[in-house]
Formats: sequence, C-alpha cells, structure tokens
Amino acid sequence: MEPLARLKCRPVQAGESTLSPAAVAELAVQVPDWQVIKREGVQQLERSFEFKNFAQALAFTNAVGRLAEAENHHPAILTEWGRVTLTLWTHKVSGLHMNDFVLAAKVDRLPAPE
Amino acid sequence: MEPLARLKCRPVQAGESTLSPAAVAELAVQVPDWQVIKREGVQQLERSFEFKNFAQALAFTNAVGRLAEAENHHPAILTEWGRVTLTLWTHKVSGLHMNDFVLAAKVDRLPAPE
Repeated sequence: MEPLARLKCRPVQAGESTLSPAAVAELAVQVPDWQVIKREGVQQLERSFEFKNFAQALAFTNAVGRLAEAENHHPAILTEWGRVTLTLWTHKVSGLHMNDFVLAAKVDRLPAPE
Repeated sequence: MEPLARLKCRPVQAGESTLSPAAVAELAVQVPDWQVIKREGVQQLERSFEFKNFAQALAFTNAVGRLAEAENHHPAILTEWGRVTLTLWTHKVSGLHMNDFVLAAKVDRLPAPE
C-alpha cells in the first residue's frame, strides 16, 4: 500500500460512507500517535502536540492551516498555551474517511516549530 | 468604572481567588456577547465568531494570538472552517478573574478579518 502521506485528500462524493471498522483498524496502524475516538456518535482522529510556549503552538497551528488549505480538508485546531490539539473527521460522512488518515499522516511529517 | 477594554491584564498574584458572583454579573454586562459557562466545575467565558471561510477564521485566530501575547493572557482558541470559538479562564484561580473580562472586551474590539 502507498504510504498515506504520499496520497492527496480528494473531494468527497455524494453517497460515500464512513470507512469500515476493518479499514479504520488497518489505517490507524500507519498513524499510531493518533487516537481513534468517538464523540457524540461521530468517530474522529485526535492528537495533541506539546510546545514550550504559546508562540510555538500558534506557529504549528498556522503550519497545519497551510496544509489544510492545500488539501482542502480542515481539522478542528485547538490552540492553547503550549499545546495544540487536532481533531479530524469528515462532516459529509459524519465520521472517518480516507482523507482524515491522509491528513493525519501529513501532519505527522510537519517540521517542529523553532 | 473604567471601560474594560482600556485596562491591561496584570500578573495574577499568589492567593488571589476567583471573582465573586456579584462581580461576574456586573462585568458580564460589559461583554454581552460572551457566555458565562461552567465546564468541569470551572467558570469560563466563551464566544464564537463566524467567518466565511477557513482563511478568515485562521486570520482571526492570529489576531487573537497577538493580543494574547501582548496581554500575557492566553485563551483556548478553537479554529474550524468558518468559525473560531474562544474560551477564557484563569488557570491560577481555576475560574474567572478580572483579566478574563479585560481580554474579552479587547477581543470584541478587534477588527473583522478581510
């Protein structure tokens, strides 16, 4: 299988559904730092990143924002002093889609803020 | 009383406690777009801002970030496509402090992103 980070997020078509539990389990192995969670019935990927101050956290938020715009897939980004928490899911399918795993893998490759 | 937005956030001293319910009620009148909420036992101020796309939301997040650094008081900033939600409270007192109302009033005066 092609590494996730080499794929591109693609437009979600009408009628697409969430990934199967087997697909989620298989893909999750490729992004082991992300947790598969369920919030209000919607399956999501979540990961927190720690930083040494607010400025670094905000710089990372902006790096994620640039990636999100390039992929046209936008996570929820919670920026706090010294921490950024990303939550990924696909609104159109109300759960996890391949795009979420692709974006998670690309986030994992972002350089650490200086 | 001096308008909140003209005050500065100030270092929280050891032994300070949360604002009294009467003080919260009086100050909340000056920032009527903010909700006083309680989450996991901690009183907080929260407001959501709507935008027409992700870029505008992220621009607003950065404007709030610059203000937070200038005041040395940092909210939790949740950036999503078309929306930013700010949650303000003071960790040192585990609840609301004058600084939270000062920052809320200053956020209210930020220009809308273009």
